Amino acid sequence: MTEGHELVISTDPAHPANLIPELCRAFYNLGWVTGTGGGICIRQGDKVFIAPSGVQKERILPDHIFVLPYPQPPPSPHTDRIFLRRPTVPLKESACTPLFWNAFTLRDAGSCIHTHSQHAVMATLLFGDATSTKTEKIGEFRISHQEMIKGVRLGGTGKALSYLDTLVVPIIDNTPNEEDLKDSMAEAMEKYPDAAGILVRRHGVYVWGPDWEKAKTQAECLDYLFEIGVKMKLAGLPTVLQA
Amino acid sequence: MTEGHELVISTDPAHPANLIPELCRAFYNLGWVTGTGGGICIRQGDKVFIAPSGVQKERILPDHIFVLPYPQPPPSPHTDRIFLRRPTVPLKESACTPLFWNAFTLRDAGSCIHTHSQHAVMATLLFGDATSTKTEKIGEFRISHQEMIKGVRLGGTGKALSYLDTLVVPIIDNTPNEEDLKDSMAEAMEKYPDAAGILVRRHGVYVWGPDWEKAKTQAECLDYLFEIGVKMKLAGLPTVLQA
Amino acid sequence: MTEGHELVISTDPAHPANLIPELCRAFYNLGWVTGTGGGICIRQGDKVFIAPSGVQKERILPDHIFVLPYPQPPPSPHTDRIFLRRPTVPLKESACTPLFWNAFTLRDAGSCIHTHSQHAVMATLLFGDATSTKTEKIGEFRISHQEMIKGVRLGGTGKALSYLDTLVVPIIDNTPNEEDLKDSMAEAMEKYPDAAGILVRRHGVYVWGPDWEKAKTQAECLDYLFEIGVKMKLAGLPTVLQA
Amino acid sequence: MTEGHELVISTDPAHPANLIPELCRAFYNLGWVTGTGGGICIRQGDKVFIAPSGVQKERILPDHIFVLPYPQPPPSPHTDRIFLRRPTVPLKESACTPLFWNAFTLRDAGSCIHTHSQHAVMATLLFGDATSTKTEKIGEFRISHQEMIKGVRLGGTGKALSYLDTLVVPIIDNTPNEEDLKDSMAEAMEKYPDAAGILVRRHGVYVWGPDWEKAKTQAECLDYLFEIGVKMKLAGLPTVLQA
Repeated sequence: MTEGHELVISTDPAHPANLIPELCRAFYNLGWVTGTGGGICIRQGDKVFIAPSGVQKERILPDHIFVLPYPQPPPSPHTDRIFLRRPTVPLKESACTPLFWNAFTLRDAGSCIHTHSQHAVMATLLFGDATSTKTEKIGEFRISHQEMIKGVRLGGTGKALSYLDTLVVPIIDNTPNEEDLKDSMAEAMEKYPDAAGILVRRHGVYVWGPDWEKAKTQAECLDYLFEIGVKMKLAGLPTVLQA
Repeated sequence: MTEGHELVISTDPAHPANLIPELCRAFYNLGWVTGTGGGICIRQGDKVFIAPSGVQKERILPDHIFVLPYPQPPPSPHTDRIFLRRPTVPLKESACTPLFWNAFTLRDAGSCIHTHSQHAVMATLLFGDATSTKTEKIGEFRISHQEMIKGVRLGGTGKALSYLDTLVVPIIDNTPNEEDLKDSMAEAMEKYPDAAGILVRRHGVYVWGPDWEKAKTQAECLDYLFEIGVKMKLAGLPTVLQA
Repeated sequence: MTEGHELVISTDPAHPANLIPELCRAFYNLGWVTGTGGGICIRQGDKVFIAPSGVQKERILPDHIFVLPYPQPPPSPHTDRIFLRRPTVPLKESACTPLFWNAFTLRDAGSCIHTHSQHAVMATLLFGDATSTKTEKIGEFRISHQEMIKGVRLGGTGKALSYLDTLVVPIIDNTPNEEDLKDSMAEAMEKYPDAAGILVRRHGVYVWGPDWEKAKTQAECLDYLFEIGVKMKLAGLPTVLQA
Repeated sequence: MTEGHELVISTDPAHPANLIPELCRAFYNLGWVTGTGGGICIRQGDKVFIAPSGVQKERILPDHIFVLPYPQPPPSPHTDRIFLRRPTVPLKESACTPLFWNAFTLRDAGSCIHTHSQHAVMATLLFGDATSTKTEKIGEFRISHQEMIKGVRLGGTGKALSYLDTLVVPIIDNTPNEEDLKDSMAEAMEKYPDAAGILVRRHGVYVWGPDWEKAKTQAECLDYLFEIGVKMKLAGLPTVLQA
């Protein structure tokens, strides 16, 4: 298969190459992906669709989407990542690609969303350690007794949580290079198999789901919970109650 | 009447099957129905139009709307709810259906709106008991001397409140299953016949009106009052004054 | 002239009957006119265009606009207000009409805007007296040394303020009936001839200008100043400095 | 070349005369340019495109854009600024013109953005001196260990900052006339060659980049950092950590 000719740009608005630009515009309006940050990828069967890196996310065009085969061996110092299609304009794939891959390989996700939402970042500061950049162990955002918890799935792809469940989202330290989060994110995903997302201190959050619809609605539920958790903390209210 | 053929989808934008998707998009932009939460139903004469459960509310299509006859006997362990039309795609009717029905039977409402607005949830925490999940008696959100009180109707369907009235919205405990709120919501509606809505602790609010326009404007007025009530509480200002 | 035939609805988007609906939609998105509150009127020469009362402001249609001749004698117990055109659907003119008229007669304004912005209401509480509903004298919102002060005009229709001017907006008590604000608003406008707007405690603000463009930009500047003034107060910062 | 005939209005949406109105509408929706404040200019090769002063920025039309040759000698008491095209309607060029020129001459910028964002203004108050209008030395907004720092470029046009860099944005005093900021802005740009923007106390911020896309994304990153820096300050969290 000749790279670069795989994806005939579809006119179907439900095609991932059309959905990703539309969703990025929506996420921009939520304040999740301003300043070129954040993004979304979609995996459909044996193909992964990924947005480019370092561009205005609200102005991505379908032609800018990268298509990769799935599965594929992890890239190494000696081998590059394999692409089915690259944009015809010079762009680099999202720096989140190895992190998105964690969601595919460790949770069999069909979509993964990364946001720089300030609710997520404030949650990492108020629920984590806000006075250090390196922490000995993984931090935790914890909240209970909120209806929106019911919109989150066990491990991101399993059955929905109940109102009686306490939501726990691990918080890992940030790294200077986004791709270096791969191992600590994977470690946190393995240590917290029920977690539906991973918070990155002073950076944002990664959320995934079986498909883009469920990834998006879980990202909305988690963001809502980060927001109200931060409000509760600042108002001096406990975020976790005994059942 | 053969179920499934009742509703010929209308091209009239004022038809409930077209209005509900439009209103859900508007409510999504207000942050009321993110993460599949919340929704709206409309009753016109002997038909009730209800959105599906667990889907992205901002992407509902007219074809996704359920149509039910009104009145009908309450469903029991032995009888199902009766439908005039179900969507052609596999969907379940809103989990709020029994709660919407409270508004129809107890207040003769023509429309009922449920939101997960954070202003409503923060109001239940700052005006209710934020350290317990089970409370002995119904809580109360109370605010006086706000112009927006005049946009709220007595009992949700009666005459408009005056600037000199104190607005009281009961706060009931949340339950793990949304349908289990039916009885405590009904009890609060009977105990507070003048209340224009019911707050659900750590969950959101139910608001109704004689028609969708009045339900919507009352939902906006109540949300405004929850928001400013929360701001006043956090600023240390009293929300109720002597007249 | 036969009432009801004066206004041929124009297709010109700059015609007041088309502008008012458009501006009301914009104000709704700013949170200024939710729940049917607030509105805008435009005077062009000898005609005043006014929106209806008690309807969803974001859904007004050109046909809903009232047209009145200007000037006209004030309505009395024995005489009604004179109209050139009423909507063909049964609607009542905005309850703000006598207050808008204050801006026309006392300031020769060409447009007047009324909002229920929470920034305005919080300003009336934090800069006024938040523990009483009746105050002996007119309150004052005061702020200095903000660039946005330069967007406000002396008396609302005169020359622009300078960065070195202290902005003062009087705060009057609210009344149960909106039209009863007419006299206290007029009194405040006469006592504060330089004021570009009148705040109404626990209600909102009235702002005017020589034309709708200037009324709108001044409403934006004042709202910005109310918002940042409230933020400064809550952060413990002084809002007025010595020059 | 005859002034006024240079710019044939282009139908290309990527032409600066079409981009500036579109970007101003987007900035209005972000709250950056309400009340006629703020704006953006674009330089392409030997032409500078600038919006008019004192008009609703969200309603600018392509015909309202000024075109100036670049470079040109600074205007003096005896010489005017040179224009290639003025709007056909009577308008004045943006009062920011001399400040935009600083970005062109001192940083070789291709675009400069000025906002009145409240996040920027609150940052100048909480990180600067909020009790005086004249300060002896330039203030500083400082923040470290935030992912969004990576979206900012050294000096606004150089290489991207790293997560390990501390972002420093100088804060200069405001002046009654916007054009009088020219010298103090230039002084701050020379004293802080790595700064990607200049904050103006009680006024807003100037941000620039090699082209409009990079100026815009840096403006978004800085605004995000001002916003989260203000939130951290108000929550009592340190904004700068040891590496």
